[in-house]
This record gives sequence, C-alpha cells and structure tokens, in this order.
Amino acid sequence: MYNPQAYALGTNRSCIRDLFEYGAMRAAIVGKDNIYDYSLGNPSIPAPAAVNAAIRAILEDTPSLAVHGYTSAAGNPETRQAIADDLNRRFHAGASKEDIFIGCGAAPELTAVFHALASPGVEFLAIAPYFPEYKPFAESAGASFKVVPADIPDFQIDLAALEACLTPNTGAVIVNSPNNPSGTVYSFDTLQNLSAILTRKSKEYGHPIYIISDEPYRELVYDGVQAPFLPLIYPHTIVCYSFSKSLSLPGERIGYIYVPKAAADSEALYAAIAGTSRAMGHVCAPSLMQHVVTRCIHLQPDLAAYDRNRKALYEGLTAMGYEVAKPQGAFYLFVKAPGGDSVAFSEKAKQKDLLLVPGDDFGCPEYFRICYCVEHEMILKSLPVFAELLV
Amino acid sequence: MYNPQAYALGTNRSCIRDLFEYGAMRAAIVGKDNIYDYSLGNPSIPAPAAVNAAIRAILEDTPSLAVHGYTSAAGNPETRQAIADDLNRRFHAGASKEDIFIGCGAAPELTAVFHALASPGVEFLAIAPYFPEYKPFAESAGASFKVVPADIPDFQIDLAALEACLTPNTGAVIVNSPNNPSGTVYSFDTLQNLSAILTRKSKEYGHPIYIISDEPYRELVYDGVQAPFLPLIYPHTIVCYSFSKSLSLPGERIGYIYVPKAAADSEALYAAIAGTSRAMGHVCAPSLMQHVVTRCIHLQPDLAAYDRNRKALYEGLTAMGYEVAKPQGAFYLFVKAPGGDSVAFSEKAKQKDLLLVPGDDFGCPEYFRICYCVEHEMILKSLPVFAELLV
Repeated sequence: MYNPQAYALGTNRSCIRDLFEYGAMRAAIVGKDNIYDYSLGNPSIPAPAAVNAAIRAILEDTPSLAVHGYTSAAGNPETRQAIADDLNRRFHAGASKEDIFIGCGAAPELTAVFHALASPGVEFLAIAPYFPEYKPFAESAGASFKVVPADIPDFQIDLAALEACLTPNTGAVIVNSPNNPSGTVYSFDTLQNLSAILTRKSKEYGHPIYIISDEPYRELVYDGVQAPFLPLIYPHTIVCYSFSKSLSLPGERIGYIYVPKAAADSEALYAAIAGTSRAMGHVCAPSLMQHVVTRCIHLQPDLAAYDRNRKALYEGLTAMGYEVAKPQGAFYLFVKAPGGDSVAFSEKAKQKDLLLVPGDDFGCPEYFRICYCVEHEMILKSLPVFAELLV
Repeated sequence: MYNPQAYALGTNRSCIRDLFEYGAMRAAIVGKDNIYDYSLGNPSIPAPAAVNAAIRAILEDTPSLAVHGYTSAAGNPETRQAIADDLNRRFHAGASKEDIFIGCGAAPELTAVFHALASPGVEFLAIAPYFPEYKPFAESAGASFKVVPADIPDFQIDLAALEACLTPNTGAVIVNSPNNPSGTVYSFDTLQNLSAILTRKSKEYGHPIYIISDEPYRELVYDGVQAPFLPLIYPHTIVCYSFSKSLSLPGERIGYIYVPKAAADSEALYAAIAGTSRAMGHVCAPSLMQHVVTRCIHLQPDLAAYDRNRKALYEGLTAMGYEVAKPQGAFYLFVKAPGGDSVAFSEKAKQKDLLLVPGDDFGCPEYFRICYCVEHEMILKSLPVFAELLV
C-alpha cells in the first residue's frame, strides 16, 4: 500500500551521497586530515556578513507577523519587485514583479516548471554532462527525458547532436550554465546558435520549444567571464534561480522563477507554475528569507577562496598531464579519467582516500568531477595523490 | 505546450482568497475599520519573543555554514532528535529521530504522504467539513478523493457513514483535529471508535488503511480540552505537523512528518516519503528554522487573545440565536446559515461588509466559517451586524 516509484527514489541512494558518507566513515578511522573529499557541492564560503546583519535588522524593524507570516503564493510584492529591479539593472531584462514567482530554491522551481510544461508524450532534453536529478524530476512530472551527448573536450553544446535529438514532441531544453559538473560557461556564440536552431525548429513544429535555464551558479564565474543572460538571446526561456550559491544560503531554500513576458504563452505558463506549486503544497517561500533577499539582492559573492582553489587544482592537474575542461564557472572541475573509465579510476583513487565522483550519472562516463569548495590545505595535500594515480 | 490541469489549478481562485481581496478593495473605499473580515486563517498572535531571541542567539553562536548550509533531506539529526524527544515527553510516543522527516509545513508534508501512499485506484477519504486543498493534493498524487458526510450538528465523525465509504481500495483516511473549519476537537471516544472500524476493515481487506493526521492546530485547544494523540490510538497513523500555528511561523514553512515504527511498512513508507520529497526537489527544510525548532520546540502558544475572541463571538452569536458548532480548538467558528444556504447568507453579509466563508468548499453548504484570529475590537463592532442579518 505504498507507491513503488517513490520507494525506489527514496532508497536508490546517489553515488555522491554514498561517497560522502564513505568519506565521513574513513575520516573517523584515519583522521579528517587524511581524507581528500571532493564529493559534495556544499558551499564552503560563509554567507556575506551583510546577510546576518540584514536578519538582525529585520527582526528589529519589522513586526513579527510581517516577518514570519504567510506571503502570497508567488511571494512578497516588495521582494518580487526587488528581483525584477535587479534583473533590469544588470541585464536590462524588462522584467516586472508579475513575471517573478519566488520559490524554495532551484530544485523545487525546476520541478514546478517541469510539471507546468509536461503533458503526455512531451520530451525534455538535457545536455550532457547534466545534473542527475533532472531525470527523476522530469519523469515524476510525466515527461520523457532525453540526453544530448557531451561536446568533448570543450563542454560547450554539440549543436548538431542537439538538433538531431529534437522532435515535434520536444517541449523544452534544459540549459545549465555555469555548468555542474563541467565548470564550463556556455559562450554567447554557443547560445546564439542554440537559439537559432530552436527558433527554426519551433517554427517548423508549430509550437515553441522552451529553454529551462537552471542558473544557481550564474554569479560564480572567473577570469572576467560572464554567463550570458539567456532570455535576451532566446525569448522562450524560463529562468530558475537560487540564492544558494550567490549568497551561500543553500539550506534556506530561496530562489525564484522568472517567466519573461516575451516567452510564448507567458501568462498561462506562469499560472500553470502557480498551479503546480499549489498542488505540491507550496503556498509561499520561507518568509524571513524573502525579506533578506529584498535587502541583499545587490550583494555579490566573494569568490576569492573558490578562485584560489580552482587555480591550484587546475594548474596542478594540467601540469601533471591530466586533461581538464576549462573551468570558468561554478565550483567544479571535470577531468578526463586516465584510461577513460571514470568508475575504475575513482575506485583506484578511493583506495588512496581521494574521493572523486565518476561521470556516469552526469551522462559522461569518461570524466570525473571534483568539487573544489573545500579547504585550500586539502587541495595542496591531495596533489601528490593525484600524481601517484598517474604512475 | 503547458499542462492544462496545472493551469486550471493556478487560475481557479479560491473563494477565500477572493473574499480576502474583496475586503482589501472595500477597505480602501470605506476604511479598514468598517470592514469585518473573517475570511483568512493567518495567525494574529506574533511569534513568542523566544523565537526571535533564538534566531539572534543562533546567529551569534553557530557558524554561518552550519546555520545556512544544506542539511540532509530528512533534516538536522539534532532537530529530529528534539522533535522525537518532545513527542516522547508529551505523549510517550516511543519516537526516535529515524521516524521524523522534517518538512516545509503541513501542506507539502501532506502532498508528500499522499504521493507516497498513492497508486492507481487508491482512494483517500476526507471527513466533511474538510480543508479544501486536500482534493487537489490527492488528485495530483493520482489518488481518488471521497468525502464522508458531516456529522451535523456535533461535527465529530459520522462513523456509520464513514464505514459505508470504505472499500478495498481505501488507502487512507485524512483526519484533521482540531478541525478547520469547524473548530471542533474529535473526542477520544470518537477516535477510538474510528480505530476499531479501521482495524476491523484493514483485517477484512488484507491491507492497512492508514490515517493521515493533519495536525497544524494540535496545540490550539481551549477549556482544558486536549487533542488525543492519534498514533497511540491507531498505530497506522502518519502525522503531518506544522509549527505555523503553535509558534506563529506560517511563512517560514517548517514542520515534520512522523511515521511511527508501529505503522505497517513504516520503513518502506518513510523511504517513499523521502522519495517523493526528492522528486519534488525538496532536499531539506529551511535550515535556520530547523535550528529554531531545536531550541523552541518546548514553547507553547499564548492562546489568551484567541480565547477572548472565541468567547466573545461564540457567546454573542449563540445569544442571538445562531447555531454554532462547539469551538474547542483552532481559531474557527462554524455557524449554521439562517435559512440553510450559506452562499446566499454570505452574499447578504457581504453587502454589509461582513466577510464570511460559505461552507460549500468544505463539503458543508449549510454552514459558514468565521476565522477569529482578528482584532478583538472588530469582533465587538461586528456583532450588531450579525444581529441585523437575523432580522
């Protein structure tokens, strides 16, 4: 008398979580300093001091009922306005608060958009390498899930392969840039070419193919690179954003969905997103954090620590001869497994207490992922272990 | 290219929301003091001072990454332990932290449990009067939704009617006590008789019929009444709790699911709940509020203001001749519409700027709901209007 799919999802543990727990178990035996755990993407930069200062100020200057009370399902009007203003200031987005739906972080926002766009037979396309949870999200929403093969070794988009995957049933393409797990940022050219294909195919099929832009890493970019703002390149783009990484608030579950007015059926789509949120019991996003966003949306993350880690690892590994995707964003490095079998290589590394995530679940079995939101010291100590693994 | 069911859910506005917005519109015309708005159940008691004190203390004594970082999907172990301890202290529940899944308030917790228990053909029973969102929650989960007629005028459970609704397809009965909208508390006798029927029928059908106990109002009880703790009466009870009302934190989206070890298939059911939460993108409940719960779970709400409102209205209305269900819990009064048509009566009241929610959506069209979490002054001013409506 219980749902077997739900049971399977609740018991099929992810490889990443398993690795993380193995690391904790080994740390108890050999000591935390002797484990090199690159498995989990939990931000290691604390929230900016201004965030906690904003919380204190809100508790002082705002009545309790307004701080902790229900907001409307779509969120506080002031917070939605602050988000629209921010998008307009930074990207000239032309957003208004009616286009913004405040959500509980990128994951539930994606599931809301997936449900809003799903109908029997509809297919969603992900581009390898991709965040593994897209698959259960899409399938739970009732859509089919297809994967465009990776563009190796640049990890942009293999546009010919993508076009070959499009069918009249394609409802949306999921784009995640800066990318988890590759750490690459799709270039303006890549996205403009993608837009041209989708525009042509939408016309051919007689219905829009949406882009669902999963952007939790939008602000985590290095070397002066910018992640192009997709709605300006392709109008039928629905943005799912999270403050998890930009404000280091992953546990607080706060972000937003942006449905640009220029997207086809934007009003109906916004209503459908509200409807799926209602069906999932989401009547408002956490209210204190909505107030925090109103006051802190202008903050940018201090990326110096991540950047230092990124350079040490990238330079260290490439000097040894590892092939690494150019890491311009997020906090991941995607590295070709010597021998081409990332499961075997990760297993070998695990014997030396170096924890790497094989790329199979990301749709890219030749590569492994390193998450570098860790202590810098650990990186320095782990480099000789990477060197040993090449011998 | 969007989901028509989701669109319908997002555009079919609730009568309660419509009334509330009508009230705001009228207030702008005739002045806030001349509107008697009993439509919305948003707590009017601020959170206990200890809640904001706990937030300040957490920001002082806990590192930012621990305050705002991801917890496991099921929640912080310390918070889960504090919840189990609280259940054991108050109810001798025999709970351990492994039985607790921290959720984002009762609504998403209910949808998670509904999804976990739903499979094709499964029916969920609600008991009129009932919270209207149960229907979209159940149907979105893929279950059928059936309603047991109300037990008028006592608003306990019509047990013969309930038994007549049971079939081999019944997966669960949803119990909500203290009840929204009736304000009644199911007695120990009522629940023991319900338990006897479900035990007998579970045996007859060869599978357990679960109770899903929706308990956001558990602590909002008056006149020394206690809401019996259902898992002690019927083992196959899954509890969905929220701190929205007990700590006046409705906007913060924090509560828990309790799956007692004695419930049939409890481990599998817990895993299925974790699985549906994962499929909906819920990887953890808001983390700062989890810390708040760890420190504040022992607090009880100060009900004096609600109790004063309750008495003024109940005594005022019954003295005029209105028939009112005995209000022992929550913050609602359920009143028989003179003439028996609550839509017509509410419409008549609306002409006098008195906003009452007709009972149709609750499955009880002869009654209307009053939500008395309002200013006491408004109650006193509204009583003469109630009197006029009887003439």
